[in-house]
Amino acid sequence: MNVLIVFAHPEPRSLNASLRDIAIEELEAQGHTVQVSDLYAMGWTSEVDRPDFPALGADDRLMPAGASRDAFKGGTLTEDVKAEIDKLLWADTLILQFPLWWYAMPAILKGWVDRVYAYGFAYGVGEHSDKRWGDRFGEGRLAGKRAMLIVTAGGWEEHYSARGVNGPIDDLLFPINHGILYYPGYDVLPPFVAYSTDRFNEARFAVAAEELRQRMRTIETTAPIPYCQQNGGDYLIPTMKLKPGLEAPGASGFALHQLAPQAEG
Amino acid sequence: MNVLIVFAHPEPRSLNASLRDIAIEELEAQGHTVQVSDLYAMGWTSEVDRPDFPALGADDRLMPAGASRDAFKGGTLTEDVKAEIDKLLWADTLILQFPLWWYAMPAILKGWVDRVYAYGFAYGVGEHSDKRWGDRFGEGRLAGKRAMLIVTAGGWEEHYSARGVNGPIDDLLFPINHGILYYPGYDVLPPFVAYSTDRFNEARFAVAAEELRQRMRTIETTAPIPYCQQNGGDYLIPTMKLKPGLEAPGASGFALHQLAPQAEG
Repeated sequence: MNVLIVFAHPEPRSLNASLRDIAIEELEAQGHTVQVSDLYAMGWTSEVDRPDFPALGADDRLMPAGASRDAFKGGTLTEDVKAEIDKLLWADTLILQFPLWWYAMPAILKGWVDRVYAYGFAYGVGEHSDKRWGDRFGEGRLAGKRAMLIVTAGGWEEHYSARGVNGPIDDLLFPINHGILYYPGYDVLPPFVAYSTDRFNEARFAVAAEELRQRMRTIETTAPIPYCQQNGGDYLIPTMKLKPGLEAPGASGFALHQLAPQAEG
Repeated sequence: MNVLIVFAHPEPRSLNASLRDIAIEELEAQGHTVQVSDLYAMGWTSEVDRPDFPALGADDRLMPAGASRDAFKGGTLTEDVKAEIDKLLWADTLILQFPLWWYAMPAILKGWVDRVYAYGFAYGVGEHSDKRWGDRFGEGRLAGKRAMLIVTAGGWEEHYSARGVNGPIDDLLFPINHGILYYPGYDVLPPFVAYSTDRFNEARFAVAAEELRQRMRTIETTAPIPYCQQNGGDYLIPTMKLKPGLEAPGASGFALHQLAPQAEG
């Protein structure tokens, strides 16, 4: 299997880099082929801006979605973006790895999403009508592939628990797991999260490393998060509201959008 | 009152720019003084990286939190970051304005947060012990000030409703409202969100503009979101779990962290 790791930490001697190397080692030991997009090392440009769209006239108004659509269709996306799209098409599994900064991904990784996720490739795909709203949330160009997050967080695991002050980790990661990975079709695996990373010592690193190795060994077989499918009958279209009764009893907020456990089998 | 608008859109003729200008006009008409940090126009750097910390030795490992702490304490933050911190101290109210891209802020604005929110300024403030966990979530250097978001979203309002496929807008914005604005002490006002902006016409623009003017007229008096306070007795410390019974009946997920309406008065 081909695995792409998109990696976002500025320091080659960081905990993140050590975990990345463990992931690569274990994936290769399992016979997989790994490519890494090391965004800091590549000098990745984070900002969607006019240079992304060389075909846009100097006096044209920059409307990012329309400009992205025209550039994808016309083959005029920049070379750095085209290369990342090629890697996404090559990879059977995508891993995004980053430290959680201010409850979200670092800017450089957000900029990878903003720029690489072109209209016609990651969104604006398929029929848009009163019966379908594009191929997304379970369908799309990346359907059939898997994706997962590897995240480090400075705070304690309890602080990210159901009643923790930061909010539950699954909710904090929902905009990424559901909105960025599930949107263009990926099956999204539960994330690997290392907590309290400000206080890592060798013993704690060894535990985290072994957990990560285990996740890499099972990356082809781990069950994905059972998100509801937009066009599979779970939502009213075009209002896109989840039909009643699909969610786990008492669920609300983001948790609504996963099928209740009993519906899985 | 002094108001800082941090603005993140690449196009000066965009809907976002038009809304920004309306906000400025109305705020000034109310007698307020407005500064704008137009991140694209400023050529803002998005990536936390080694050049942020000129005092760091060439062979030193870059640990972002520690480097930020040393740079803030030693006065060696870069001039662009220092200027933004000065603006935050000047402003009585902060407005972050941006288009919602992939359910989050554009990279350039995330990079403003990542770089400007220095250790010792926006986090790592106050006593850290088993009884307190720093001055945050209701306390901090920016306490007593107000903040709010002005957001544009391409999708329909229903798609961001309680059962909408994108997830509820208040949950999508929670990591920003609670994790970025409330964290260093701001009182966070409900956001202004314009939906379906891909299909704006003059009539819809006029409605949105009037709603925004009304929000700007009441910016000093609008009640903030009643988030629970970390050190005010709402949370168990050091596990940081919300004590039972403070939330609205049946609340879960992010919604837990707001006091139930009856507790407000």
